[in-house]
Amino acid sequence: MSKKNIFYAQSGGVTAVINASACGLIETARKNSDKVGKVYAGLNGIIGALHEDLIDTSLESDEDIHALRHTPSGAFGSCRYKLKSIEESKAQYERLIEVFKAHDIGYFFYNGGGDSQDTAHKVSQIGEKMGYPVTCVGIPKTVDNDLPITDNCPGFGSVAKYVAVSIREASFDVASMAKTSTKIFVMEVMGRHAGWIAAAGGIAAEKEGDAPHIILFPEVAFDQEKFLAKVDNAVKNYGYCSIVVSEGVRNAEGKFLAEAGGTDAFGHAQLGGVAPVVAQMIKDNLGYKYHWAVADYLQRAARHIASKNDVEQAYAMGEAAMNLALEGKNAVMPTVVRTSDNPYTWEIGSANLADVANVEKMMPEDFISEDGFGITEKCRTYLQPLISGEDYPPYENGLPKYVVLKNQLVEKKLPTFDFDE
Amino acid sequence: MSKKNIFYAQSGGVTAVINASACGLIETARKNSDKVGKVYAGLNGIIGALHEDLIDTSLESDEDIHALRHTPSGAFGSCRYKLKSIEESKAQYERLIEVFKAHDIGYFFYNGGGDSQDTAHKVSQIGEKMGYPVTCVGIPKTVDNDLPITDNCPGFGSVAKYVAVSIREASFDVASMAKTSTKIFVMEVMGRHAGWIAAAGGIAAEKEGDAPHIILFPEVAFDQEKFLAKVDNAVKNYGYCSIVVSEGVRNAEGKFLAEAGGTDAFGHAQLGGVAPVVAQMIKDNLGYKYHWAVADYLQRAARHIASKNDVEQAYAMGEAAMNLALEGKNAVMPTVVRTSDNPYTWEIGSANLADVANVEKMMPEDFISEDGFGITEKCRTYLQPLISGEDYPPYENGLPKYVVLKNQLVEKKLPTFDFDE
Repeated sequence: MSKKNIFYAQSGGVTAVINASACGLIETARKNSDKVGKVYAGLNGIIGALHEDLIDTSLESDEDIHALRHTPSGAFGSCRYKLKSIEESKAQYERLIEVFKAHDIGYFFYNGGGDSQDTAHKVSQIGEKMGYPVTCVGIPKTVDNDLPITDNCPGFGSVAKYVAVSIREASFDVASMAKTSTKIFVMEVMGRHAGWIAAAGGIAAEKEGDAPHIILFPEVAFDQEKFLAKVDNAVKNYGYCSIVVSEGVRNAEGKFLAEAGGTDAFGHAQLGGVAPVVAQMIKDNLGYKYHWAVADYLQRAARHIASKNDVEQAYAMGEAAMNLALEGKNAVMPTVVRTSDNPYTWEIGSANLADVANVEKMMPEDFISEDGFGITEKCRTYLQPLISGEDYPPYENGLPKYVVLKNQLVEKKLPTFDFDE
Repeated sequence: MSKKNIFYAQSGGVTAVINASACGLIETARKNSDKVGKVYAGLNGIIGALHEDLIDTSLESDEDIHALRHTPSGAFGSCRYKLKSIEESKAQYERLIEVFKAHDIGYFFYNGGGDSQDTAHKVSQIGEKMGYPVTCVGIPKTVDNDLPITDNCPGFGSVAKYVAVSIREASFDVASMAKTSTKIFVMEVMGRHAGWIAAAGGIAAEKEGDAPHIILFPEVAFDQEKFLAKVDNAVKNYGYCSIVVSEGVRNAEGKFLAEAGGTDAFGHAQLGGVAPVVAQMIKDNLGYKYHWAVADYLQRAARHIASKNDVEQAYAMGEAAMNLALEGKNAVMPTVVRTSDNPYTWEIGSANLADVANVEKMMPEDFISEDGFGITEKCRTYLQPLISGEDYPPYENGLPKYVVLKNQLVEKKLPTFDFDE
């Protein structure tokens, strides 16, 4: 049997550690060069496969591939393109198989969230049907932490650490100025649908009075009166109030708070995020001076403060995916299985893509405190290990030394394929 | 001669390393306990002295004092209270001397920016006049980097490092998604009057095409047409455009861009900062999808990514201030004297407060590139060493272990003093 080549693609929003998964996969493939061929990566994700834009990773040095372990973002480019059902996107699925066939690709690794696992699952089905079976393995990734079965999703732990560290630091700042100046600090974090990232801010509060004093979750309908009372209470008791707000917070009518601020002079919806809306609401009602921050991409790109457990798990998921494929497993995804909370121990498991695809793991209700403004001990026990350990990148001239790969494309063998990007 | 006690206060906006200066001062005072008495710190800065709220730092353990070296914010509290001229604020100056007299304080250390150095200078004059001479020494601190004579201001190097690291990381993220998604990233940084902090973002761009592609300085009147052309050029050449914008950017009429966005539904001025204004302008004119971040306090509190040179200089300034006082120097401020750019070497100097007070060091014109959107090599040569080296705090449970002092107050000896805070 000839050695089959590998196709790997990064999908959706990138993270501080998705390249660590790529590193784990490629290094493991290189170690098994007697069994598998080259690793081709899709330029800008799955659309690279559709365009036959395949990056030949065998042209990258071992050193550069190893540097992926500490480089944030998607080194081969990612995209938000989602393949629909096989019926609706039949041409695309067939094109994928044609490209795989043309380049002797026998393995398809898709590194992404729920949608990507669904795509990987469908590719495994269509390959079979078209008489060109491809071993399809998903690699979990998403800062949203919403994949089922796995203990957590690589990428989340590092965002969580960034948020917890940042709110602690900024709150120290506010605490020291609060007597005569800013009393309110609002930090906006990602999480359109689920409060996992916002919850991570709660880890910074270790004892009564510690910041953050309030967390606003997308899961809890915003109650302005209760919220303002809680803010005022924090200021009166601790001298200041530090707040983590999820971008996805909605009011009782289900409308995003970020959109509730009205329109600007040009008639646009409020440009700012939810942080300035919440801050201004406090100022209007309680009169306290505020500051606010919107972390946006800084949080998911912050490789400089990545969680060691997260980096290790991301690498391990890439490695495990390759090993699963070598064992002949198809339509599966490696998972993190937690075996103990404290000390945190974990091992590699695997899940069927059929069970992962399109299942969204929400934050359990008992992770949010009764008043809706904080996390429970159960939540803390879950989150704590995910932010643990530091894994600093190398520095040069005061800056992290991240790798930019050559990303040379393989010669095309097929006619152009037109599709609606 | 009996041993005189020491008064130390933190002033103005705090930084990631102002406590390192406190640490240098207190540790040096403890080493010289044969010559000086206790170190009292003002609770919330100078207003602590006016209220006779003096923290007895001798009650803090050596270990906790040492932990100040890696703890951001102002451990004793800071304030933005500014004493006016001796004529206008005579009662306050006299009160300070009375408090110093009551607590046998012979040394006044004021850790802050230009205003604080001015206050320290005035206190040295009034003490003399009132027949209770106090040795007054300023300790430089400001993220704005606008003190004269000293090579740089402790606090600035760490913000600079945060900004350079953050824009590099977020730009890697955007670069990998730009093909099908976000093409524009705008990061807002501090700097109402001077572009030092924005300029620091420029260090991240080491070669043609590197991010950030554009820096908007308060020193350069915003030219929308030129700006948009530059944005479009970056997107066409590099696939995306990464922008660092100073909060203080103004248009040709001198109006802050942040205020140009109109009012919200309640008639308030635009809640957002300048980043969303700039991002929306690009969207409206060029149609590119954007993301933006406002770092706010995260940047000046980010002890987790502090510059090693900055931490060392902050500590050294506290230490040198104590040594200057022990040498009998009055109305002076220790400074950083650069003796070589590369390798960066520096030594301790000192300046007269009279020469420091109320002199603002602006960014030299030849630090900004000819088109007004970037930094020159001269600027890079100056900034590079300031962000160099890492100085990580200790971690516990995945979070930096910052110290919170006991901050016990000394018993009051004087009647209450009323003043307009």
